[in-house]
Amino acid sequence: MNGNKAITKRDEDFAKWYTDIVRAAKLADYTSVKGCIAIEPNGYAIWEKIQSIMDKKFKELGHVNVQMPMLIPEYLFNQEKELIEGFAPELVWVTEVGNKKLDERFAIRSTSETVFCDYYKKHISSYKDLPKLYNQWCNVFRYEKETRPFLRSREFLWQEGHTVHATEEEAITETKQMIDVYQWFNHEILAIPSITGKKTEKEKFAGAEFTLTNEDLMYNGICLQDGTSHYFGQKFSKAYDVKFINKDNKYDYAYYTTWGKTTRAIAAIIMVHADDYGLVLPPRIAPKQVVIIPIGNDNMVNDLCSEFNKKLNDDNVAAYIDNSEKTPGFKFAEAEVNGIPIRIEIGARDLANGVVTVVRRDTREKKSIKKEELTTDYIEELLQTIQKDMYNRALEHQKKLTFEAHSMADIEHILNTQPGFIRAMWCGDEDCENKIKEIKGCKSRCILENEKPIDDKCVCCGKPAKHHVVWGIQY
Amino acid sequence: MNGNKAITKRDEDFAKWYTDIVRAAKLADYTSVKGCIAIEPNGYAIWEKIQSIMDKKFKELGHVNVQMPMLIPEYLFNQEKELIEGFAPELVWVTEVGNKKLDERFAIRSTSETVFCDYYKKHISSYKDLPKLYNQWCNVFRYEKETRPFLRSREFLWQEGHTVHATEEEAITETKQMIDVYQWFNHEILAIPSITGKKTEKEKFAGAEFTLTNEDLMYNGICLQDGTSHYFGQKFSKAYDVKFINKDNKYDYAYYTTWGKTTRAIAAIIMVHADDYGLVLPPRIAPKQVVIIPIGNDNMVNDLCSEFNKKLNDDNVAAYIDNSEKTPGFKFAEAEVNGIPIRIEIGARDLANGVVTVVRRDTREKKSIKKEELTTDYIEELLQTIQKDMYNRALEHQKKLTFEAHSMADIEHILNTQPGFIRAMWCGDEDCENKIKEIKGCKSRCILENEKPIDDKCVCCGKPAKHHVVWGIQY
Repeated sequence: MNGNKAITKRDEDFAKWYTDIVRAAKLADYTSVKGCIAIEPNGYAIWEKIQSIMDKKFKELGHVNVQMPMLIPEYLFNQEKELIEGFAPELVWVTEVGNKKLDERFAIRSTSETVFCDYYKKHISSYKDLPKLYNQWCNVFRYEKETRPFLRSREFLWQEGHTVHATEEEAITETKQMIDVYQWFNHEILAIPSITGKKTEKEKFAGAEFTLTNEDLMYNGICLQDGTSHYFGQKFSKAYDVKFINKDNKYDYAYYTTWGKTTRAIAAIIMVHADDYGLVLPPRIAPKQVVIIPIGNDNMVNDLCSEFNKKLNDDNVAAYIDNSEKTPGFKFAEAEVNGIPIRIEIGARDLANGVVTVVRRDTREKKSIKKEELTTDYIEELLQTIQKDMYNRALEHQKKLTFEAHSMADIEHILNTQPGFIRAMWCGDEDCENKIKEIKGCKSRCILENEKPIDDKCVCCGKPAKHHVVWGIQY
Repeated sequence: MNGNKAITKRDEDFAKWYTDIVRAAKLADYTSVKGCIAIEPNGYAIWEKIQSIMDKKFKELGHVNVQMPMLIPEYLFNQEKELIEGFAPELVWVTEVGNKKLDERFAIRSTSETVFCDYYKKHISSYKDLPKLYNQWCNVFRYEKETRPFLRSREFLWQEGHTVHATEEEAITETKQMIDVYQWFNHEILAIPSITGKKTEKEKFAGAEFTLTNEDLMYNGICLQDGTSHYFGQKFSKAYDVKFINKDNKYDYAYYTTWGKTTRAIAAIIMVHADDYGLVLPPRIAPKQVVIIPIGNDNMVNDLCSEFNKKLNDDNVAAYIDNSEKTPGFKFAEAEVNGIPIRIEIGARDLANGVVTVVRRDTREKKSIKKEELTTDYIEELLQTIQKDMYNRALEHQKKLTFEAHSMADIEHILNTQPGFIRAMWCGDEDCENKIKEIKGCKSRCILENEKPIDDKCVCCGKPAKHHVVWGIQY
């Protein structure tokens, strides 16, 4: 068999392959609420793992969690024009309670800058109250027209950090620190080699001074923004009157940052790592890292399975035994489609020969090892190897799909052949950005601030280049 | 000083005392969204602790977490009449997106039976698919008229378990198991001696066959329902067509249970344990269990603080040093108002005499102990003692405020003197229940199913008694 029958081939129809993986691995399903998904146990367990690792990191850096209201009165939204303009078409409004019309409309949060600023306004009076390093885990709602599970859903889950500081320098440091946290998370935990940079004026968050972003490249060469950190300067704090008395005993407005990462990370895991056999989970994010499958009903086999399962769990490896009533073949396929990093098969015949079988999900490599070799150390080392190999393979693929363009024709050629990350110089003029977008909707992904130029002229107009930019087609 | 100046005396004005505690301990604040609170870091940290302990227990019992949509199409709600009737006045409706009217209204979930049933309908076809033991942690919205932080808020956080089973027996076992989990949690973790029983027909959840409940008694003798587990039989699965093929190869409808516990638990902690000096947290739910306060700026003092703090944290005691620039007196008061179970004061003068000071928050008892006695074992034992003592004091108080009524006059007398749990026999007739309610709104809290009768006649009508019931005034 070449691939899982329930899953369309990735090279045949990437979009269909993606939704097939989501369903086959039981990550999420469509619901009667258009554009909203049900996140199923396998999918939610990944989100819980994402939450626990990121939350620990946030707290180590001094952040604390809070919970602000989900409904936002219309007048509050209207205080910051760019924000309401940026989000207006996607906002859903609560207008009735029971069968009575409300006096004012409430938006369901699409993002919470308004409510956080309204809170900070009341709770900050002196520089001694600063910084406030708040974060919340919650659901948000954006009425998207086209939706795809995890990738773009009307309701999604995320964390949104909202911090206020006494100085610009401190706030900018926070903005950079948090995008570095996301990059660390993508590289080290998700095995996704994101690139990090600054959004152009056109692409930055509504109302921000600047936006830093993590951009991932999917297997098919399409780009995905999957973590952003915004610096707002004093713009929002002026609009919402978040002021404090500084060290010089004068009124000043707080310096504000926000940063967020969403359930979209699950889409990235799929589109970077999964294959024709199903999901492939990097060991560090896999809710279950090892499945042990007994073959046949043999006491020695069952004892060894139980013993080794206990040993692994005692040593903090997330292992489990599949002792359901299904056939071994069915269990193998299920572990495979669910992306469990390591599968251990233990059968009586093999045991008689003193061996057990260990299968890597990422390479599907099957190895017969001596029973004595099956230790926690062996498994932990293999999990590390898989994690590292998955990152390197993704990086290799990303390098293969990273191109340099020196002309508009280059961009067009690349997009017609094989899309990917396109590196090209830019003068900084939005007109040129718009012209590049005319080529198949190719957008600037981010400005690489510390990379050497590859040209001295803008790829579009030929005027002196200011920025080394990565361009691409996005989800 | 007798009590904290920022806090109204509990015996003077209980309601004012309660909201003073919420503000003084920085648990939550009011927002610009009427009836909705901002849960602040100190309050949210308690909720995180509640979540982590309950979630671990749920998972040990085989439950898994999911996330269903927050919006519910009107037609879906309408499929179960009792549910829509029970919740209709409190439902808020989304009717617009951007500036356009939607074709159909969506309710923000006030509870998720509808969406879970709609999901299960699609995903259950055989008894082999059962049971499904799903739970979700989320926000819900009920448009309450009168609100109080944590106690009754338009938006609140909760977990809602939704399980489907192949047999009635299994589903009833689940319903009972989960109310036992809540009772265990209240008794062992929150040090609240809840009583557990069955709701009367009048007081059960809209659409349920029966409802089991945990009822707490607040310090002032008012009752609080703070955890419920419902058995629905096949009512919802018939309304939503959740059917499966059973072992006899015949169609049957799934047996359904739901159970939930909310941020209201934080209100219970306050109203059972707090005092005139602020919050008092039971050690097992306290996000921070021990605060170490250095007095004066002395190297030996600072070293001992750091050393002992590290030791405690290494041994899994949640300790921290308050080395902010405030005065020791201010730090003492802050630790006290925030309810930190143990405060350790370390000063140079005491150290010269080889002693340190340990203060219990619950009794405010101050003890000078030899420096060598200050070990993890000492602290852990003291935390256990505090936990046990808090439970016993709450139980003692609850016993003191538990009364027996043998006539309507008794009930009236009790409610006019000192309200509490009122035990009285009942014939089972709703008319009698309504008559008792006429006395200051006194409601049945729950039927005690395994307690001996205290009379053979109904407290109201004098006909033969069927149930031993606890009555009381509720929040």
